[in-house]
Amino acid sequence: MPSISQRGLKMPPSPIRKLVPYADAAKSRGTKVYHLNIGQPDIATPTQILDAVKHTDMKVLEYSPSAGIETYRKKLVEYYSRNHISLAVSDIIVTTGGSEAIQFAMLCCLDAGDEIIIPEPFYANYNGYANSGGIKVVPIPSGIETGFALPSIEEFEKAITPRTKAIMICNPNNPTGYLYSSEELEVIKQICLKHDLFLMSDEAYREFCYDGRTHISALTIAGLENHAIVLDTISKRYSACGGRVGAFVTKNKELLQTAMKFAQARLSPPTFAQILAEAAVDLPLNYFDEVHAEYTNRRNTLVARLNAMPGVTCPSPGGAFYAMAKLPVEDSEAFCQWLLESFSHNGATLMMAPAAGFYATPGKGKNEVRLAYVLNENDINHAMDCLQIALEQYPGKN
Amino acid sequence: MPSISQRGLKMPPSPIRKLVPYADAAKSRGTKVYHLNIGQPDIATPTQILDAVKHTDMKVLEYSPSAGIETYRKKLVEYYSRNHISLAVSDIIVTTGGSEAIQFAMLCCLDAGDEIIIPEPFYANYNGYANSGGIKVVPIPSGIETGFALPSIEEFEKAITPRTKAIMICNPNNPTGYLYSSEELEVIKQICLKHDLFLMSDEAYREFCYDGRTHISALTIAGLENHAIVLDTISKRYSACGGRVGAFVTKNKELLQTAMKFAQARLSPPTFAQILAEAAVDLPLNYFDEVHAEYTNRRNTLVARLNAMPGVTCPSPGGAFYAMAKLPVEDSEAFCQWLLESFSHNGATLMMAPAAGFYATPGKGKNEVRLAYVLNENDINHAMDCLQIALEQYPGKN
Repeated sequence: MPSISQRGLKMPPSPIRKLVPYADAAKSRGTKVYHLNIGQPDIATPTQILDAVKHTDMKVLEYSPSAGIETYRKKLVEYYSRNHISLAVSDIIVTTGGSEAIQFAMLCCLDAGDEIIIPEPFYANYNGYANSGGIKVVPIPSGIETGFALPSIEEFEKAITPRTKAIMICNPNNPTGYLYSSEELEVIKQICLKHDLFLMSDEAYREFCYDGRTHISALTIAGLENHAIVLDTISKRYSACGGRVGAFVTKNKELLQTAMKFAQARLSPPTFAQILAEAAVDLPLNYFDEVHAEYTNRRNTLVARLNAMPGVTCPSPGGAFYAMAKLPVEDSEAFCQWLLESFSHNGATLMMAPAAGFYATPGKGKNEVRLAYVLNENDINHAMDCLQIALEQYPGKN
Repeated sequence: MPSISQRGLKMPPSPIRKLVPYADAAKSRGTKVYHLNIGQPDIATPTQILDAVKHTDMKVLEYSPSAGIETYRKKLVEYYSRNHISLAVSDIIVTTGGSEAIQFAMLCCLDAGDEIIIPEPFYANYNGYANSGGIKVVPIPSGIETGFALPSIEEFEKAITPRTKAIMICNPNNPTGYLYSSEELEVIKQICLKHDLFLMSDEAYREFCYDGRTHISALTIAGLENHAIVLDTISKRYSACGGRVGAFVTKNKELLQTAMKFAQARLSPPTFAQILAEAAVDLPLNYFDEVHAEYTNRRNTLVARLNAMPGVTCPSPGGAFYAMAKLPVEDSEAFCQWLLESFSHNGATLMMAPAAGFYATPGKGKNEVRLAYVLNENDINHAMDCLQIALEQYPGKN
């Protein structure tokens, strides 16, 4: 039997899927499971954009251009401009989800053995793409005690080696919900310029910023035009995760031309979802107001409920739809498994993502969980009832 | 300015796109260009399957499962069974086009520095995926004089080194149209077993076999259950290239589990096109009869016209919708460019793919072109009129 590649064997399994069999078993016992473990929003996809797909009148479902459908790319310029990001059509390559944008960025900027600095905890799939390309992820610490603020400039400097080629941030952050300030982005800018590093900025949650704060895109940092790459997606913005449409955006022409070669090798991004995404740019401008109000209420409820539980700490996230909480347990993975295997309250339990999978440093985040507030407030309250009672009953409590 | 990765710089540009600017210029001068250069079929996508997408009634466009929508995977089992390939649902991962299946196969089977043997000429995008993964493509020669038959067992043996991990074939073949016989597949089987190599079989054109011959899938070769991986796609089968739905299929459980980790890292394949693909399995069984008759006629016309031109040789392809032709010119790329830049007949010209881009060995295929018979017979005849006259007029003729 031929042997699997080392990179195949080393490919990290998704940390949020480890507990899925326990959730399935709970459901088959008739227990209701509140899913706070994954970033699949329950928000309805706007009917106008689903209708755009239904109203297509094509004879042949052709390859789209490798860079994406021209009319959609033009619409994207309009979308970014509305978000105070000034772009040309030629700065944008439409990708198959944000995932492919991450992949293009890593392949274009880093060779095998090169290093990318990422503040931890971070979106676990970055590990998968780094592993595929033989790239070394160098984590620098951010912690719940500072609400997951950007690590200090000293932490960056300590991590830099001759093989460092890029810094990756997710802003607003998955899994922490942290929204970077202009001062923090200034720190990153100085480091990128000093050491000539690419800045990859995953801005999947751009629209989800709370408390009156605004998002600052890496594409608007003056002086970083040749360093900044934005990795974007319509998945969360329009609750359209299954479309698989994202974007690789940079003002660096040489980088864009390089990414185009990867884009041509895979021929084209999916046509139907590009039609949907193009229609999304024409949604009424107040579309996000309602969504925003909904997520704000959910966040407020979730964070208040968590912090009211003895021994639980949850910094209020400034963006995205995730919160990280420290629990009074030794091992949050064992606790999350126990919730699914051995606990129920009024016939229900909840599923959360153990945070250790978002840290690259072994042992970190062991008593933390990530909660995605992708359920309505009523369900969030039910889930928090479960958590509260579970923490009272859990035998492994600190 | 930070520097682009070596793999980015080395990424081969698509050979079929080099001449696109000349085609655009010709069109802007008002010249009609017959596109025989790319495998984008003109066949209408069946309305039943486009309708399946129009009739969806979803509230949220959710991520599909990473392995694909369960009902679609079940339908695929039915599809393969109809093609005499016996599979379980768990043998199939739905991918984003055949492209992603190629990528998964390369990443799961080969590490950087490992080697994959591919008979040349071959589908040029294999180079891109190999380059992304630091994989070395080792070409072995097939030639127009034998109609692009499989290279001899000696050629395989000569190419094998301790780093050889896999053999890749495309059957029926793009770019040559060659359909491998059971005897040829037996040769490949013996080599794979003797040297414990994976066999990657790109079967995008399974339905397009002519002259009463049948396709033999790598999945049906007894004894190769742990070696064979089929890379599949709906793109050509249902004229649905823009859907971006393919499949990675193997009976090797360990390999499939490894590919699942790559599938999870990219979350999911596109939902809309999976709905379309699921409906496609329910098309009337005679759907392919008409398509097949159409392509057979086109092939016969194209091949007859080509071989009737002085100095032109075109072996009749047994499958797919490509033909390779040797032309009485020194440099087919210069000729193809001249066709677009300096030639027209009745206001029209034609675009073909210079074959050198499909060979890995420098200098090979310089007087050959690939023609995709994706136009109706009338257009093919017009295009052949152009070619015939062009060859008479071309100053660089041999």
